[in-house]
Amino acid sequence: MQKIKETISRISGVDRELIEKTQRRLDNLTKPLGSLGRLEELAKLIVGASGKESPNLKNKVIFTLAGDHGVTDEGVSAFPKEVTAQMVYNFLNKGAAINVLAAHAQARVVIVDIGVGQDLKPAAELVIKKINYGTQNMAKGPAMSREEAVKALRTGIEIFEEEFKRGLDIIGTGEMGIGNTTAASAITAVFTKQPLEAITGRGTGIDEKGWRNKIRVIQTALEVNHPDPRDPIDVLSKVGGFEIGGLAGIILAASANKIPVVIDGFISGAAALIAFQIEPKTKEYMIASHSSVESGHKYILGHIGLQPVLDFDLRLGEGTGAALGINLADAAVKILTQMATFESASVSGKDK
Amino acid sequence: MQKIKETISRISGVDRELIEKTQRRLDNLTKPLGSLGRLEELAKLIVGASGKESPNLKNKVIFTLAGDHGVTDEGVSAFPKEVTAQMVYNFLNKGAAINVLAAHAQARVVIVDIGVGQDLKPAAELVIKKINYGTQNMAKGPAMSREEAVKALRTGIEIFEEEFKRGLDIIGTGEMGIGNTTAASAITAVFTKQPLEAITGRGTGIDEKGWRNKIRVIQTALEVNHPDPRDPIDVLSKVGGFEIGGLAGIILAASANKIPVVIDGFISGAAALIAFQIEPKTKEYMIASHSSVESGHKYILGHIGLQPVLDFDLRLGEGTGAALGINLADAAVKILTQMATFESASVSGKDK
Repeated sequence: MQKIKETISRISGVDRELIEKTQRRLDNLTKPLGSLGRLEELAKLIVGASGKESPNLKNKVIFTLAGDHGVTDEGVSAFPKEVTAQMVYNFLNKGAAINVLAAHAQARVVIVDIGVGQDLKPAAELVIKKINYGTQNMAKGPAMSREEAVKALRTGIEIFEEEFKRGLDIIGTGEMGIGNTTAASAITAVFTKQPLEAITGRGTGIDEKGWRNKIRVIQTALEVNHPDPRDPIDVLSKVGGFEIGGLAGIILAASANKIPVVIDGFISGAAALIAFQIEPKTKEYMIASHSSVESGHKYILGHIGLQPVLDFDLRLGEGTGAALGINLADAAVKILTQMATFESASVSGKDK
Repeated sequence: MQKIKETISRISGVDRELIEKTQRRLDNLTKPLGSLGRLEELAKLIVGASGKESPNLKNKVIFTLAGDHGVTDEGVSAFPKEVTAQMVYNFLNKGAAINVLAAHAQARVVIVDIGVGQDLKPAAELVIKKINYGTQNMAKGPAMSREEAVKALRTGIEIFEEEFKRGLDIIGTGEMGIGNTTAASAITAVFTKQPLEAITGRGTGIDEKGWRNKIRVIQTALEVNHPDPRDPIDVLSKVGGFEIGGLAGIILAASANKIPVVIDGFISGAAALIAFQIEPKTKEYMIASHSSVESGHKYILGHIGLQPVLDFDLRLGEGTGAALGINLADAAVKILTQMATFESASVSGKDK
């Protein structure tokens, strides 16, 4: 826990004065006041998180963590669980959506096996930090031990720190794990206290019957495990996943090191929820990239108090929404740092 | 009119079979069915418009047309009219928002003086196609003659064709013209028949009193000129603007040449409305980049039947929203053309 406690202790609030100064700077650029709407908001979020008056989002990384879920034994997913490993190979071969969208945003993808159910062939671009071969079936008992949950958080912090040493200006979260919308819904249920029908979606595409079964499975998991909402590590261990814990660790580490973190969709949102429950100041370092089709996502965003950048009907994960969000964040920062002012461009201001 | 008629005659419907084929292709990529939402929609729009099975959006151009408006005499704008010319110089010096966002999207900006109220210093990157020194005050009579309206459309077609010769894969529309939200609201009123209060916004930032005056001015312009909704060129001449007519010509030419055209905000939307009223098939070539803060914009989108890509609280113009839209369209096309299929990546499909 030492590493985790030390990281949390370094998370501070953002500099409100710097954000106000940034608003004044935006107001002096050659455009009507506030006319770039959400782009201006994004620029201020990044200045606030980074603490830099003129950020430059050169080094962009998306962390895509893969882990398996024992709860797939309950038939909660439309895809077989082998797909987790198969998709990791697809990431390594640059054939997945995250590869395409990260390249478009000029971001690197760091692919991590934090808990895939099988041993993966080593590859130059694969970070192996396997905590276990998938989680246990949460409908029968805790998904993982408390030690494993702590290790998942610490592993996330370590993964972040390795990349941070190489230089980072903004990061995104992503994941792959067949069955992980079930874990994300369970986590959302514990913290937001919303009815399961409202926060359980169809994941990769189950039918009505499958959806009813998924709700029953989550209900059972909550009854069997009694996750304690006052103890986020307890919640992570009982109904979480290794990739979710790892991402929560990454979010804690990014916040401690003042690196803005663009949150992907529902599963990344569940990781953000755990990080937020551990330390609410992490919120100031988060940018919600989009509003997912998964119905639980809006409750997560509402609970943390985040405004999604895009509403694009996405429900893929991997970090795909985060890649789009990073690209827009980059545009926002360029607006702040590259535009002329009324004075420098000799443009007349608003009539008094 | 010969050139215009010839262009319109070449606008054809899109190939529905090709779009369905594209849907099947998207469904075979390594992702759950439909999980990339609006990105998949965008990819299909571009395949449909371009008629190309595997588009490559290499050559991207944003046309930013500048023109002045005689109606500024009525005090409808928060900024003095000299700002139109000043902003053109700002575009040439790469200090404006459109320069920053177009560069981010790797798009070139073609800057055109189609009706600025003063002579501009020649510059390598400035296309001078001035029809007149601003329009006349529409509250006193027609904004321009019918001949000028026809010339504006033809000029737009010519501007497009010059760039088309150099190679074009996708274009965006943009404009600069102090007073042009007044013209856009008047055009919107004629075609959508909505009350002026609903479709008149605050432009660059007028107050309540200014807004009431703007509505009165538009009311007067409509009463004085009686624009005929069955005759889009009549509407353009009576309450339009040179940049609006030029953009309508560009949209007609893009449609005739199967180049997808990303429409910026409210003023570009008024140009799209004129193109649509001239030839409804132009709709199939349009992508609405965003939903503007200007209240009339949603009525334009609803009238044509376009779904905006972004909801970003933008109200700047210049083509800024189009630049963001082009960037996302590029991402969408890369998804279609660069992702692996389930078969090529050896990923298992959905459980039956």
